[in-house]
Amino acid sequence: MNTARYPAPTLADVPDDIRARILEVQEKAGFVPNVFLALARRPAEWRAFFAYHDALMLKETGSLTKGDREMIVTTTSAANNCLYCVVAHGAILRIYEKKPLVADQVAVNYRKADISPRQRAMLDFAMKVCLRSHEVEDADFEALKAHGFDDEDAWDIAAITAFFGLSNRMASFSNMMPNPEFYLMGRVPKEKK
Amino acid sequence: MNTARYPAPTLADVPDDIRARILEVQEKAGFVPNVFLALARRPAEWRAFFAYHDALMLKETGSLTKGDREMIVTTTSAANNCLYCVVAHGAILRIYEKKPLVADQVAVNYRKADISPRQRAMLDFAMKVCLRSHEVEDADFEALKAHGFDDEDAWDIAAITAFFGLSNRMASFSNMMPNPEFYLMGRVPKEKK
Amino acid sequence: MNTARYPAPTLADVPDDIRARILEVQEKAGFVPNVFLALARRPAEWRAFFAYHDALMLKETGSLTKGDREMIVTTTSAANNCLYCVVAHGAILRIYEKKPLVADQVAVNYRKADISPRQRAMLDFAMKVCLRSHEVEDADFEALKAHGFDDEDAWDIAAITAFFGLSNRMASFSNMMPNPEFYLMGRVPKEKK
Amino acid sequence: MNTARYPAPTLADVPDDIRARILEVQEKAGFVPNVFLALARRPAEWRAFFAYHDALMLKETGSLTKGDREMIVTTTSAANNCLYCVVAHGAILRIYEKKPLVADQVAVNYRKADISPRQRAMLDFAMKVCLRSHEVEDADFEALKAHGFDDEDAWDIAAITAFFGLSNRMASFSNMMPNPEFYLMGRVPKEKK
Amino acid sequence: MNTARYPAPTLADVPDDIRARILEVQEKAGFVPNVFLALARRPAEWRAFFAYHDALMLKETGSLTKGDREMIVTTTSAANNCLYCVVAHGAILRIYEKKPLVADQVAVNYRKADISPRQRAMLDFAMKVCLRSHEVEDADFEALKAHGFDDEDAWDIAAITAFFGLSNRMASFSNMMPNPEFYLMGRVPKEKK
Amino acid sequence: MNTARYPAPTLADVPDDIRARILEVQEKAGFVPNVFLALARRPAEWRAFFAYHDALMLKETGSLTKGDREMIVTTTSAANNCLYCVVAHGAILRIYEKKPLVADQVAVNYRKADISPRQRAMLDFAMKVCLRSHEVEDADFEALKAHGFDDEDAWDIAAITAFFGLSNRMASFSNMMPNPEFYLMGRVPKEKK
Repeated sequence: MNTARYPAPTLADVPDDIRARILEVQEKAGFVPNVFLALARRPAEWRAFFAYHDALMLKETGSLTKGDREMIVTTTSAANNCLYCVVAHGAILRIYEKKPLVADQVAVNYRKADISPRQRAMLDFAMKVCLRSHEVEDADFEALKAHGFDDEDAWDIAAITAFFGLSNRMASFSNMMPNPEFYLMGRVPKEKK
Repeated sequence: MNTARYPAPTLADVPDDIRARILEVQEKAGFVPNVFLALARRPAEWRAFFAYHDALMLKETGSLTKGDREMIVTTTSAANNCLYCVVAHGAILRIYEKKPLVADQVAVNYRKADISPRQRAMLDFAMKVCLRSHEVEDADFEALKAHGFDDEDAWDIAAITAFFGLSNRMASFSNMMPNPEFYLMGRVPKEKK
Repeated sequence: MNTARYPAPTLADVPDDIRARILEVQEKAGFVPNVFLALARRPAEWRAFFAYHDALMLKETGSLTKGDREMIVTTTSAANNCLYCVVAHGAILRIYEKKPLVADQVAVNYRKADISPRQRAMLDFAMKVCLRSHEVEDADFEALKAHGFDDEDAWDIAAITAFFGLSNRMASFSNMMPNPEFYLMGRVPKEKK
Repeated sequence: MNTARYPAPTLADVPDDIRARILEVQEKAGFVPNVFLALARRPAEWRAFFAYHDALMLKETGSLTKGDREMIVTTTSAANNCLYCVVAHGAILRIYEKKPLVADQVAVNYRKADISPRQRAMLDFAMKVCLRSHEVEDADFEALKAHGFDDEDAWDIAAITAFFGLSNRMASFSNMMPNPEFYLMGRVPKEKK
Repeated sequence: MNTARYPAPTLADVPDDIRARILEVQEKAGFVPNVFLALARRPAEWRAFFAYHDALMLKETGSLTKGDREMIVTTTSAANNCLYCVVAHGAILRIYEKKPLVADQVAVNYRKADISPRQRAMLDFAMKVCLRSHEVEDADFEALKAHGFDDEDAWDIAAITAFFGLSNRMASFSNMMPNPEFYLMGRVPKEKK
Repeated sequence: MNTARYPAPTLADVPDDIRARILEVQEKAGFVPNVFLALARRPAEWRAFFAYHDALMLKETGSLTKGDREMIVTTTSAANNCLYCVVAHGAILRIYEKKPLVADQVAVNYRKADISPRQRAMLDFAMKVCLRSHEVEDADFEALKAHGFDDEDAWDIAAITAFFGLSNRMASFSNMMPNPEFYLMGRVPKEKK
């Protein structure tokens, strides 16, 4: 039950542009997160997936911090029971927020997490988009505004939630497993890694 | 309740590559489906969205026909209560399948639709990915294989379901409305349009 | 999967009073809606069913228009995933409301439909009776009153919802299929039919 | 919370045919069950309701005993959380089955009730019609057949379930309260009443 | 389906302290409630179970009456579909509240029961702890306070709910059956027993 | 949102027997897990709680290892969204199983965890008791037996699940927070702590 259903290509087998990006990630992280190779067996989908990812997660505008974004991913991925995304993005969340406990907290019950009221409102909105998007209504946007989020921020929250809903389903259906390295990242002071 | 929350750009305002694609679609369909302009307010997301869409919906390999793919979209979008996608892709489904009734059938209850046992198995798999992806297991792939779907087809079904789950959430959250033209497409013989 | 489980009698086989009503409907609609023959295999149930139907759908008192009533039927039947009732009553809804798009809208997500705030409140009440009748409370009646619905109107909304909940279960369990004619009714200007 | 929302007419106020039936019931039961007067404020609906009731509950054909039918009503009404129907029909169930404990058992968890395997299969079918009628499929009918139920019996089970689903919603929405007499009926030997 | 899966020990087989308590209960109730022998096959668990039970149900402090406590048990046990606890504690509830109808009412739909607004608020809190404890928030405590319940009362309500959630699962999983005597207790004037 | 609603007593304030046990735990673990002080504000409940805990978690008989038991706790506590129990028992699970990744795996989706088929069957049974105990049936016991679990093991699995369902509700309702120490326990080789 714990190996990927679809064999991943090796680095040598993937197109150059994909290999270049993967090497860049490996350089930075110290290992290749499994999603990069698992999806590379279909280059066109890979390119679209990471273009979408980057457009949402690397954008410089808006009021969402990178920690906020990873918090949305970890929380909604837990609601979708996606092992890969909870573990991988929980790791990044810990690092960005510099809070070793926060990922486990939002994954189990974000209502109990040690986060700001602004982040709580952000997650309430994200969870509604994740679980009941057809019921989103004006009041949900008003609740965001009370914490300083404008309509562009609402779009960011919704789009991140929607994109990782896609990612969650791909990872779960294909039995994508998180790299062991992720489990410990951000839990202990950096020099120990 | 029935106007988009986010104002769409005009054709004049969008980047050239996006405009070119939109004009191409308009040429073919006779109108511009709202999703093309609604998402164009964020060009990077637009490009990723349609690159993903094309990779899944226009690919030439695998055993899924274009009608099969639209059937997956219509059925799972109904499960997500997404008005835009049910109406727009239901129209395309009617055209590809040359069955004026099939879109309404799969949208209300795919178990009652006038489709092949192979398509029924395809939709069973899609609905599980849509609603309970964390429970997908070997038996689900076996059920597909009994109807001639291999693992690449399973990936196609899952990826289409996952991608339109993203699309459903974006459309519902932003109150994207389907163009009136879609509602009638494929219901009456072509010369009457 | 798409034929009725129970063979319907022919017009020649049904009791005179039932045949008379069926001929009257056929005269008006141009065809015999399948429910009339499907249920006629049990005349006593048929008579009770249509007596109930007429008491609710043809009554002249109260503030619900005929379009309102068909809107309740279409919306709650979609919540019950009843193909027959969504298609057949969606057709009548389009005709009464003179809105070719409204049936598809309320069937997929009534919150997005192009309807009045009064109709939205009516459907909120109907959906609560449909899905969680044991939780109906004073506040639900108050919400109706804010839109001019009195307690008799509330009864009408509830009774229509309850009656078609019966109809939905009978149609789904017995695999009753909507006549093909319904799918297009009310979508195109009358002279084209 | 425990009085009916709609005032019931008095016996003197109802049409003659309705009064005749009510008096007959009163003669037999020793009191007038509240549903008879509560619905009588709308004579046309009353007549259809009891015509339907009688067609299903008093019919002489088929293999369902009167106890079986009341068991279906009690079980599915509990699933719908309908106080009136659980209490009133639970009473009749105890009497018909001559089992003072059975009504409480099926209302709380029919899987634990002291009933026959045939009755268990009957209730499995009824509960599926009650809660997920759109998923009823051939296998459900096969399971019935293994216990000697034919397709007409299946119709009876489904129709009783569907009709009392209507009744449950009417009773709950209108706050119809069961007569105190019902609670004790069939629990103690008859001479003690 | 209606006999316990695990054979209960006889009185002669249980440790002295357990036998003493059981004899005391028998003396008072006139029979041995099945839970006392069913759990006695594991003395250490038995002792912990009844110590917990007594700490919550026999405590002398706080504003919850013994009737209130049994009402919580009956209502939440019905939500958990536990036959043993609904029947056994429903009996005790009738006796403590001196209301022969109240147990059936809260078991089917506590919103319709003939109870005080204070008891209704108590049950709203209990049902949230029973079904969605992770969503309990300040507003739930505020709603209790409006009816005079302080934080210690809230603890009592929650702990009773939680403890009987344990009891419900043990009884259902092991097929523990309520003694026939419980069904009638508190329904008829005492001299008739 | 992240502090306990009920102030915990200090060690000096608790009865001697409770203090002795707490000191023993502190000696062994290096800190006092919050549940020990949080519940100590009510000594009678504390004693029953830990007596029950010990009877199930420290018993020497049966085929469940200590790691198995903590795996049941972590998995079902995640299903109940209980932050305290997932974090605290996840830590103990990692230690007993000597698997630094297993707790996060079973908490997010036990179907994807790196566990034995026997443990998978154990968790399937536990999750049914946790979420749908009223539907437990013979087939569930048979599935256990296929992996060598006898009826006493089944009782252990059910009782652990039921007991921690109590614990989950108490922790969530009272906002009990896990000690920070738990989050890292068992993730890194012991000498690094």
